[in-house]
Amino acid sequence: MKRSERLVAMTNFFIENPKQQFSLPFFVEQYDAAKSSISEDIDIIDDMFQRMGIGRLTTVPGAAGGVQYIPDLSKNMAHQYMNDLIERLQDSSRILPGGYIYMSDVLGDPKFVRQIGQVFASAFQDQHIDYVVTVATKGIPLAYAVAQVIGAPVVIIRRDPKVTEGSTVSINYVSGSSRKIQTMVLSKRSIEEGANVLILDDFMKAGGTVQGMMNLMNEFDANVQGIGVLAEADDEDEDRKVHNYTSLLKFTELDEVKQSINVEKGNYFQS
Amino acid sequence: MKRSERLVAMTNFFIENPKQQFSLPFFVEQYDAAKSSISEDIDIIDDMFQRMGIGRLTTVPGAAGGVQYIPDLSKNMAHQYMNDLIERLQDSSRILPGGYIYMSDVLGDPKFVRQIGQVFASAFQDQHIDYVVTVATKGIPLAYAVAQVIGAPVVIIRRDPKVTEGSTVSINYVSGSSRKIQTMVLSKRSIEEGANVLILDDFMKAGGTVQGMMNLMNEFDANVQGIGVLAEADDEDEDRKVHNYTSLLKFTELDEVKQSINVEKGNYFQS
Repeated sequence: MKRSERLVAMTNFFIENPKQQFSLPFFVEQYDAAKSSISEDIDIIDDMFQRMGIGRLTTVPGAAGGVQYIPDLSKNMAHQYMNDLIERLQDSSRILPGGYIYMSDVLGDPKFVRQIGQVFASAFQDQHIDYVVTVATKGIPLAYAVAQVIGAPVVIIRRDPKVTEGSTVSINYVSGSSRKIQTMVLSKRSIEEGANVLILDDFMKAGGTVQGMMNLMNEFDANVQGIGVLAEADDEDEDRKVHNYTSLLKFTELDEVKQSINVEKGNYFQS
Repeated sequence: MKRSERLVAMTNFFIENPKQQFSLPFFVEQYDAAKSSISEDIDIIDDMFQRMGIGRLTTVPGAAGGVQYIPDLSKNMAHQYMNDLIERLQDSSRILPGGYIYMSDVLGDPKFVRQIGQVFASAFQDQHIDYVVTVATKGIPLAYAVAQVIGAPVVIIRRDPKVTEGSTVSINYVSGSSRKIQTMVLSKRSIEEGANVLILDDFMKAGGTVQGMMNLMNEFDANVQGIGVLAEADDEDEDRKVHNYTSLLKFTELDEVKQSINVEKGNYFQS
């Protein structure tokens, strides 16, 4: 196989298999090329991935070593993605009765979802994550988008038990905004004891739902390594139950009467 | 930029932007290369994508023309993906009380989900799809995986109305297995009238849920171009309400008492 052909194949391979280590002999056999040629290919791909702002290839030397793709979106690219998202969200026709905002179309767009996933994956790249945990329904696409980049499985907490989940663990919690008692349910076999988890959700107001997810993770003896929310509501700052979280967006104004809406970048971009 | 560098960048670009047409001048400007060089790059990538069994680049000549990536998994690759999945599913510890099967871990694995999405996208590649429609919760990751490959947005039907959905259309339907009356709800602004939709779900027994989704699509004057289910239960064949569907897997045995489970490939692989 020629270098040009190998570069196409290997670029696809690394993108499809992030955060997994492969030995040089694996590529030598796969593409029937000399070790020195494969090393040069890896240098070229590494260099381009960095210039494109999508991450890097890291090589661990030695017999047990190998090369792996570490996705890491540049802050520049992350800013660009969020600017596109903010432009799409700042449209007063999105305001719903009660001062809520319609985001389902944006969360339904696989391109935006993939970009959000890349930003979150970069935000939590230093944490070792065994599971990405979210609660049905709107957080699910975001959780998968992150999981795909970091190569970890997704675990979905439900509002009600379902026969296809087997035995479950459930907790009650108080929803921050409505002050109602709600339930969360998770299949017993979904998480191993002592696992490291990343909690993800689409929107955070007072943080009751995220707090509930943390309590449920406690029941599984899981360690919460990070909390990510796509958007937070600014006006709930004082009552917020959750403090160590990463937000990509912040709604600073959402007024049904004035029909005004203002979205800014979240705390991930403040540091 | 050198050819080797362009090949890395362009391979990533096509994979990230499936089913979208780009003009040659776009690439000429993007990578600062001659038109003839870009054409040769495209030929190399097209050739490799076909050899790798992941699709092809098609070029439309003329001023309004351009090149686009058509993902199309080879049947060979599809068989291989399903064999892996079947191996993972045929494990009697997955059998739950009532003869149900635990699949949440498989549906939580982003690698399997992505592969299933590629198989479905190939199965429906001749249809023009404006929206991929699914019902919460388990169908959601599959819908996004397909949507990402075919470049269409996802629309999620819910079991209950939510304030963040705005005004909704709802229908009642009779669940095939439990014979209970259930409800489906979809935001009014989620689908344009006359749209072409692909219906996706994880599991089909008698088909009541899929039938409900079809009825709801009717309320939106949408045209159902295809129905895909990851797995169907064989024993419900006689009572089935839905006939034109594509299944990737078929459970031919699922016996709680005997603790036996048998999974085969679905009707997509029979033709």
